[in-house]
Amino acid sequence: MTAPTLLPPRTVSELGERALVARVTGRLPMPPWVVVGPGDDAAVIAPERGALDVLTTDALVDGVHFDRRFVPPDAIGHRALAVNLSDLAAMGASPRAVLLSLVLPDALDVAVVDGLLDGLLALAATHGVAVVGGNISRTPGPMMIDITAIGSVKPRRVMTRSGARPGDAVYVTGSIGDGLVGLRSLDIPDGQAPTHCQERYLRPQPRVRAGMLLGRNRATSSCMDTSDGLADAVRQIADASGVGITLDAAAVPIGDEARRWYAAHAQRALDAALVGGDDYELLFTVRPAHRGRLRHVRRSLGDLPITQVGVVTKGRTLSVQTDDGPQPLPEGFDHFR
Amino acid sequence: MTAPTLLPPRTVSELGERALVARVTGRLPMPPWVVVGPGDDAAVIAPERGALDVLTTDALVDGVHFDRRFVPPDAIGHRALAVNLSDLAAMGASPRAVLLSLVLPDALDVAVVDGLLDGLLALAATHGVAVVGGNISRTPGPMMIDITAIGSVKPRRVMTRSGARPGDAVYVTGSIGDGLVGLRSLDIPDGQAPTHCQERYLRPQPRVRAGMLLGRNRATSSCMDTSDGLADAVRQIADASGVGITLDAAAVPIGDEARRWYAAHAQRALDAALVGGDDYELLFTVRPAHRGRLRHVRRSLGDLPITQVGVVTKGRTLSVQTDDGPQPLPEGFDHFR
Repeated sequence: MTAPTLLPPRTVSELGERALVARVTGRLPMPPWVVVGPGDDAAVIAPERGALDVLTTDALVDGVHFDRRFVPPDAIGHRALAVNLSDLAAMGASPRAVLLSLVLPDALDVAVVDGLLDGLLALAATHGVAVVGGNISRTPGPMMIDITAIGSVKPRRVMTRSGARPGDAVYVTGSIGDGLVGLRSLDIPDGQAPTHCQERYLRPQPRVRAGMLLGRNRATSSCMDTSDGLADAVRQIADASGVGITLDAAAVPIGDEARRWYAAHAQRALDAALVGGDDYELLFTVRPAHRGRLRHVRRSLGDLPITQVGVVTKGRTLSVQTDDGPQPLPEGFDHFR
Repeated sequence: MTAPTLLPPRTVSELGERALVARVTGRLPMPPWVVVGPGDDAAVIAPERGALDVLTTDALVDGVHFDRRFVPPDAIGHRALAVNLSDLAAMGASPRAVLLSLVLPDALDVAVVDGLLDGLLALAATHGVAVVGGNISRTPGPMMIDITAIGSVKPRRVMTRSGARPGDAVYVTGSIGDGLVGLRSLDIPDGQAPTHCQERYLRPQPRVRAGMLLGRNRATSSCMDTSDGLADAVRQIADASGVGITLDAAAVPIGDEARRWYAAHAQRALDAALVGGDDYELLFTVRPAHRGRLRHVRRSLGDLPITQVGVVTKGRTLSVQTDDGPQPLPEGFDHFR
């Protein structure tokens, strides 16, 4: 009797590639517009009539973009999809399909893959997104999950980073700074647990509906997401549009829990909120004449706050207006520095 | 004088993320149907009118899918795109756009990235494919290049794996076995250099035109590529179609150089050709009534050989007819076993 061989497989290499693929694809619901789903050389989907295809890809690497000591598998899967849906939202697109590329170490427990799918598929179901295909590869290095998301948008509803003009108002959805507080407090627990911020870090809600409504109402002159921090988003929109932006420090919507956490850790909440990433909000600009369109979006959105945080200026200056006067906008984060 | 700081950056971390992204995107030509190219939250492209979207993703990991000791950077870039174009070809799709996800170690020489793009962009230009977006991430592990390719195909021209019926003939494009000979001879040089096979391994030519012609002429009942070996492709088509397939050993188009190499290494060329991967040919089935359509494809294709290698049978048996009688079809390769 060789009892160990009767145990169910535990690692991805024990399970084998084909069984692993079957385990993943067996869980995927397929909407009717998927002509060919997983299991062929490629997936085939019917584009939405009269719409453009919107395409984005983003990878999460173990030890770089998440830390498995405090990020559970379902949150890894949720985040991997959320960062891509956030990019589609920033373009005004409705998400439709994703391809899932998993790069896994041999010794990885299959339960990690199962958990990852739990989180990913729950978020996918919320937004009506189908996982239509993908790939599973081995690696001698860390686990990696690379998602490509495909959305659709009507031609006149596309939002880009480059349309801001002097005089436009600058807005942001939701609140800023929660992601960084969540990450830091998970990384170095100190007895306090800012649970709202931790949830916002672990399972960010991409602003899919806000992006679609902003695009559909043609309310914005530019838009992008704040995944690399508010300061970075401000700089990118200003650079792409050839304008300056002045932020109003007092207006930046930093949540109460994040403010308390920074106060307890003797840090300025504003500095952290400006450069910290992992908030998946939308930063966008609105022409003065289009405030009515924005009002319409606000009404449709319901609870999600939209806050004016600054104005677009003619010079190329990027600054933050504080009680101590104007300060230069801090530099954003460079993933390779 | 601190001379070293005046030297140009050598590693990707010295260069930094933004400069690296700019270095890549600066080289990308954009066709007119790209509405928004790299540099925004997502890319936007106009789908081809009346066509379906075809989507595939495939990752190459350093040390798993290629060995940098004998695969030069341009070949890594070429192969990363070729494996994806081969998947689109198997569906009958014309390739249009790709997203490029690079996951790079800090210490990687920027020249490797440049070389990788040389190979990738040369193949992209050959097939009129635009790199419309992507992502660059850090990793503490090996270099990885993950490509998502998007093609388009008219609804009635889609080829899948599942339409083979008893009585159909089984065909393969080009030659089989070169990829494995190329890989082995590069890995363990022995004074001989089967240069054709090595080039076929390093810079495989995906059968894009053959796939499009087969789809357009509705010549096939099923199709897939042979990237995981001829035996694997035969098994996948048979499984998906619920049929058996009998291969004719003598008919498998093994090239002269590969045959000589196997003879010199006292191996049976057939066994290696059946289970070896890295040939990016198309395996497909044709109904007896559609031989005329295949003739039409052959005429349009010109030089590329198309060889009948077997027949589809009613039982679910998979076998190879040899001089010594029928043998069972060998198992394919499992990436995790």
